[in-house]
Amino acid sequence: MTQVKDITQRVKEHLEALREFTATPGEGVTRLPFTNEARQAIDYLRNAMEEAGLSVRLDATGALIGRLEGTDPDAPAIMIGSHYDTVRSGGAYDGIAGVVAAIETVRAIRESGAKLRHPIDVCAFNDEEGIMYGIGFLSSKAMIGARTVRELKEYKDPDGESLYDAMKRFGLEPEDIGTCALDPEKVRCFLEVHIEQGPVLHAKGIELGLVDVIAGLRRYRITMRGEANHAGSTPMDMRHDAVEAAAKVISLIPGWAREVGGGTVATVGYMRVSPNALNTVAGEVEWTIDCRSSRMENVNAVLIKMMQKLEEVKEETGVEYVFEPLVSIEPGVMEPHLVDLLEEACKEKGYSCRRMLSGASHDAHILCEKVPCAMIFIPSKDGVSHSPLEHSEYFDLAHAIDVSAAMIEKLDRE
Amino acid sequence: MTQVKDITQRVKEHLEALREFTATPGEGVTRLPFTNEARQAIDYLRNAMEEAGLSVRLDATGALIGRLEGTDPDAPAIMIGSHYDTVRSGGAYDGIAGVVAAIETVRAIRESGAKLRHPIDVCAFNDEEGIMYGIGFLSSKAMIGARTVRELKEYKDPDGESLYDAMKRFGLEPEDIGTCALDPEKVRCFLEVHIEQGPVLHAKGIELGLVDVIAGLRRYRITMRGEANHAGSTPMDMRHDAVEAAAKVISLIPGWAREVGGGTVATVGYMRVSPNALNTVAGEVEWTIDCRSSRMENVNAVLIKMMQKLEEVKEETGVEYVFEPLVSIEPGVMEPHLVDLLEEACKEKGYSCRRMLSGASHDAHILCEKVPCAMIFIPSKDGVSHSPLEHSEYFDLAHAIDVSAAMIEKLDRE
Repeated sequence: MTQVKDITQRVKEHLEALREFTATPGEGVTRLPFTNEARQAIDYLRNAMEEAGLSVRLDATGALIGRLEGTDPDAPAIMIGSHYDTVRSGGAYDGIAGVVAAIETVRAIRESGAKLRHPIDVCAFNDEEGIMYGIGFLSSKAMIGARTVRELKEYKDPDGESLYDAMKRFGLEPEDIGTCALDPEKVRCFLEVHIEQGPVLHAKGIELGLVDVIAGLRRYRITMRGEANHAGSTPMDMRHDAVEAAAKVISLIPGWAREVGGGTVATVGYMRVSPNALNTVAGEVEWTIDCRSSRMENVNAVLIKMMQKLEEVKEETGVEYVFEPLVSIEPGVMEPHLVDLLEEACKEKGYSCRRMLSGASHDAHILCEKVPCAMIFIPSKDGVSHSPLEHSEYFDLAHAIDVSAAMIEKLDRE
Repeated sequence: MTQVKDITQRVKEHLEALREFTATPGEGVTRLPFTNEARQAIDYLRNAMEEAGLSVRLDATGALIGRLEGTDPDAPAIMIGSHYDTVRSGGAYDGIAGVVAAIETVRAIRESGAKLRHPIDVCAFNDEEGIMYGIGFLSSKAMIGARTVRELKEYKDPDGESLYDAMKRFGLEPEDIGTCALDPEKVRCFLEVHIEQGPVLHAKGIELGLVDVIAGLRRYRITMRGEANHAGSTPMDMRHDAVEAAAKVISLIPGWAREVGGGTVATVGYMRVSPNALNTVAGEVEWTIDCRSSRMENVNAVLIKMMQKLEEVKEETGVEYVFEPLVSIEPGVMEPHLVDLLEEACKEKGYSCRRMLSGASHDAHILCEKVPCAMIFIPSKDGVSHSPLEHSEYFDLAHAIDVSAAMIEKLDRE
């Protein structure tokens, strides 16, 4: 039986090696899809998977999948993994910690001497973050059959290179995107280990989080159009100030999310003021709202208040608006039985745990549309992620691996 | 006596020629200081001044000054003019219309056969707008002795070139900045013709505006610092959202200006959100306030309310703030006697006019600290300026020239 302290040492070695594959040394980890850094990570992971006894293939999206065959050729696969890409100047844990966890889970199972009935597929997904091409979840979307060749050609990076061309350049075959689709009959479940990316576990001193629901999410882009005018010579009663109008709506949004409650969050994280000159009344403000909750009704309640206020502010200020939906994802419910098994494993192993909502979306959110999913969170120091300051403890990750291995063995015996 | 219709034709020719000196053909006029376009304008204006019988010199700031000598060698000069630089993608009238007006005023006076006792200095000032180096009013500030060599070295464009180096590159001698200072004893007054840049004259169908006060102005930069966090996984009660905090203050500012009244205006025209990602709670928002009024007490009243609210919002949200003063200019009072002479001239010539506050600052605002000043506004279509849509009528400019010439002749007879 592999000791937790050995697992801790192994994940430390992996994560310290993998954090070096960054385009921004000294300023966090930047491992964007289809870059040299992505290639370095793939090569490293392929090697680690092979050492763990897996037979490895790269799918058309650049997802690396390592299989450990089971004893029953008819048993569906147990998938386990996460993504290997990062945001710009992100941390050394988001995504990749779950890939490392998957590899070490399989190694721990093999070292325990157990022969599993089910095959296990260790997955390292690509382009979850969606930094370059404006859409994320490339591998997981392809696995549920929700990415088309047309989309790959449509989405482009800021320099105009399409996802399609980037895949080609990287040696992949985008025309084969359809071959990535899973046959749900052949998959028992997907288990994802991930950092929490929120402050709850760390603040409360809990070792592991067991996700029961991943929040549903709607994003809108709101463009408000007034009239750009000279800040000195335009009397207050002759203005149509887009900043004033935007601020009147935006200032109320967080309060609505608190009012609605039930873990609902609402964020305006992006604003573009035009012409953005200190001596000019703004003619246009573009901003986004990102609203999430375990229940879509809560999200809608916030959005309805926002729409009413937009209308009211238009009357007051003469500033027109349009809003465009950007993203709408239903809440993702994890399979209750899998969560129960994880909780049992935590109890048996003596780890404190807590069922929780995931406010962040993950590959499991996508895959749960087609296959049963479960997620384990490890604490994020101060809840920080998408930052060079992102930090999680190697021993917490080792605990997640310990629980993952125990849960998979339970599942295999069913 | 030159006919107004001839003057109209001449200003049309000048302005149509000058609008071609732009770095953004087809997208308004962009004539930034120390560029090829600035050089083209200088060459054109030098030629036009010489044709009008003036002896022309370029001062150390790049201001072009054309003198018509008077009959009395001891009489102080009557200065008339405006600036030749523009904002990015600005209009074809802001500044340059006043330079053209000055040249044609002198021409009209000469053609009338009048021999003036006072010399006249036709001025085309440089870098009034302050687009490149973060400070404007280069020529007028130098004329009141308020620009030092140290400042010229300190202020830099976004590429890091200092004002000092730009002047050198343009063939000027920044070390001679002190020689630009006027001797107030040798200046009778400065008269500036300018577009209103506001909607009042056009909306009310008034031909000319006579400025009695230029609004006092304070600008501050406010930086609010919260904590950047994941928009999904950070519960509402664990956030320090800089956008929420900023919007809570900014949304109230225009209302305070209306409350204080007396023509007070307040504008937040610039905002920079960081990291400015739609899925990240903003860690920092930088924004500016520009507040103006004919009375500094009104400006201060708005700023005090803002500071109280900033403190209140800090308590509520935990978002810290700092504010830095950027600009503070006292109101500029035009010389009442000069305004009276302008009003007399309007009446005699049959032009409708209105005394008014200038909300925008102008070179006359700077110069009035040392020499008596007056300003004539011509209507701006829909109040639009700093835009390719900026528009004024050539005949309105001709009326301003007609009144300027009459006023100067009156002054010369005193």
